[in-house]
Amino acid sequence: METIRVERAKTLKEKPNPDTVKFGVSFTDHMFLMNYADGKGWYDPRIVPYGPIPLEPSAMVFHYAQEIFEGLKAYRRADGKVQLFRPRDNIRRLNTSAQRLCIPTLDEDLALEAICQLVRLDESWVPSKEGTSLYIRPFIIATDPTVGVHSSHTYLFAVILCPVGSYYPEGINPVKIFVETEDVRAVRGGTGFAKTGGNYAATIRAAERAGQKGFTQVLWLDGVERKYIEEVGTMNVLFKINGEVVTPPLSGSILAGITRDSCIQLLRSWGVPVTERKITAVELFAAGESGALEEAFGSGTAAVISPIGEMDWDGRRVIVSGGKIGPLSQRLYDTLTGIQWGKVPDPFGWVLPL
Amino acid sequence: METIRVERAKTLKEKPNPDTVKFGVSFTDHMFLMNYADGKGWYDPRIVPYGPIPLEPSAMVFHYAQEIFEGLKAYRRADGKVQLFRPRDNIRRLNTSAQRLCIPTLDEDLALEAICQLVRLDESWVPSKEGTSLYIRPFIIATDPTVGVHSSHTYLFAVILCPVGSYYPEGINPVKIFVETEDVRAVRGGTGFAKTGGNYAATIRAAERAGQKGFTQVLWLDGVERKYIEEVGTMNVLFKINGEVVTPPLSGSILAGITRDSCIQLLRSWGVPVTERKITAVELFAAGESGALEEAFGSGTAAVISPIGEMDWDGRRVIVSGGKIGPLSQRLYDTLTGIQWGKVPDPFGWVLPL
Ligand SMILES: Cc1ncc(COP(=O)(O)O)c(C=O)c1O
Ligand SMILES: Cc1ncc(COP(=O)(O)O)c(C=O)c1O
Repeated sequence: METIRVERAKTLKEKPNPDTVKFGVSFTDHMFLMNYADGKGWYDPRIVPYGPIPLEPSAMVFHYAQEIFEGLKAYRRADGKVQLFRPRDNIRRLNTSAQRLCIPTLDEDLALEAICQLVRLDESWVPSKEGTSLYIRPFIIATDPTVGVHSSHTYLFAVILCPVGSYYPEGINPVKIFVETEDVRAVRGGTGFAKTGGNYAATIRAAERAGQKGFTQVLWLDGVERKYIEEVGTMNVLFKINGEVVTPPLSGSILAGITRDSCIQLLRSWGVPVTERKITAVELFAAGESGALEEAFGSGTAAVISPIGEMDWDGRRVIVSGGKIGPLSQRLYDTLTGIQWGKVPDPFGWVLPL
Repeated sequence: METIRVERAKTLKEKPNPDTVKFGVSFTDHMFLMNYADGKGWYDPRIVPYGPIPLEPSAMVFHYAQEIFEGLKAYRRADGKVQLFRPRDNIRRLNTSAQRLCIPTLDEDLALEAICQLVRLDESWVPSKEGTSLYIRPFIIATDPTVGVHSSHTYLFAVILCPVGSYYPEGINPVKIFVETEDVRAVRGGTGFAKTGGNYAATIRAAERAGQKGFTQVLWLDGVERKYIEEVGTMNVLFKINGEVVTPPLSGSILAGITRDSCIQLLRSWGVPVTERKITAVELFAAGESGALEEAFGSGTAAVISPIGEMDWDGRRVIVSGGKIGPLSQRLYDTLTGIQWGKVPDPFGWVLPL
């Protein structure tokens, strides 16, 4: 494996207050960079001071959005050690996204080493307060300075880090979600399963409209029939209906969430039945109205578990679990965060201490 | 209207050979830039030397592809004057794209003035050889240095220019197109009608696969039923069937091409019937096999008219117009290029001399 060159920052930044730091606003002292060129492959892996990336105005990423990213976290345990949660799964998913977008894949070991070395160097940025963590954002952008639709011949892989405060500083508050019936996020045959910019750009309008109506998140329906539940903004969704947990299958238009997979594994290990199957909005709302819907929650790296307290669809409104977090959602949240922060055993081998 | 500040380049670049210059590779001496910030609006319109744009690694455009663009051309007439083709339509379409992507719209007059002043300053870059032109690429990118899916609070609007050689240096050669049945470009409710990066990123894989099989372009089917013809890579498509020209309607998933609209207006002025309606691949291939399909062509700024000589779909192959350009395609090409280069009268008021 290539060695990573390190150029340390001459001056270090002041760290933000972990109580008030907003998600994604404040970045650490260093970043990891590596270039790619056709014929040469990935080259010059390096850690350098965090700072602007100068790109030609013709760089492909600005025009044709050939870009992919990942999101994972580093957690500080009570003993002061720092650990990552399922980082290899993020790197594999980055490579899956790369294939869809015709971006060259990364060597998994090198990418993991890059993340580990960078977090180690900026380890003092990993906050220690309850619920806080260091968010890790690896991404790849197409840098060819030519205007014309084709896959780029040059790329930049970067990893940046930002400390994040607790997602639930005031305790877990269930969210209100709005089932979007006009805009579509993704369709089978498209890029829905990849973590690529275009999927997110497409969602901004609906998210803004939902926000104006007082909702926290949009719940997406499938792009073909606009009938089946897909996922919410940056989370997968799971529903407990008549004692069974149901979640939409990975059919190509939704992201294969790592938190989703962790929930499924945990639930099965507890003997809770989980089915990955298509579920219509009609079925979901009927279950909500009849009381069969016991719990509903989103799963994702940022919130871990985000209980859904209310869902609105086409004028219909359903209150879930009395608008409070349900017992299974709470147990998943406690167990996952317990594993992530190293407070409970990790029978699945999910954590990687630095 | 705000005045545009001009900072001239200290040294001018060498101009590329117009016979060999490749599309989108070589840029002129200057570019136009203008910033946007919430509460402040668009500000500091300026023409500056062409050069790199430094952006924070956390800039939204790298992660969530909140970005839009346009493409139009400046043409040098025989008398040496330079003129643009329907530039206001491009600016309006940029604003349409902006609305879909929650990007603040531009003042039309200022955007037009920006393009005109920039082209005037770099006028010596407009080549004069038969078929050559200056390609104009306006684009807007989200620049907020924060990681988190929402619409950006800051943006950069830029215009860059590149001289382009003749699209048909060896005469017009009809292309072979491949009807894609797996990947999908866009779906109603998505961003297909907007000129935004994500639409193009989604197409790269299919275009590469088609290229490997010897095809020049991909013909897209609709994302819902995968039945209806949509458009090709960067062109709309028109078919002459039994004396009538048929083209897919602007139903939300395809770009409202300005060349397409120009073709429709010209055809109607000539008394050729044109229908904007849904057309299935089944109908198209049946018409091809029965001989009812007389001509097929793409329309777009780059090629103007690109005759389709062969189409393949699911193992079926149709040769159109004997693999040669048809008379109506040729007439459209001659008339449109005639108007663009100022060789024939412009009854529609499409050209804007600088
Ligand atoms: C569209 C989308 N779905 C689901 C998720 C949840 O994935 P994960 O659990 O890996 O964070 C995310 C966030 O990463 C996302 O962006
Ligand atoms: C997807 C797509 N469709 C159609 C077109 C043709 O549009 P226009 O005739 O305005 O160049 C383009 C190119 O601009 C395009 O990118």
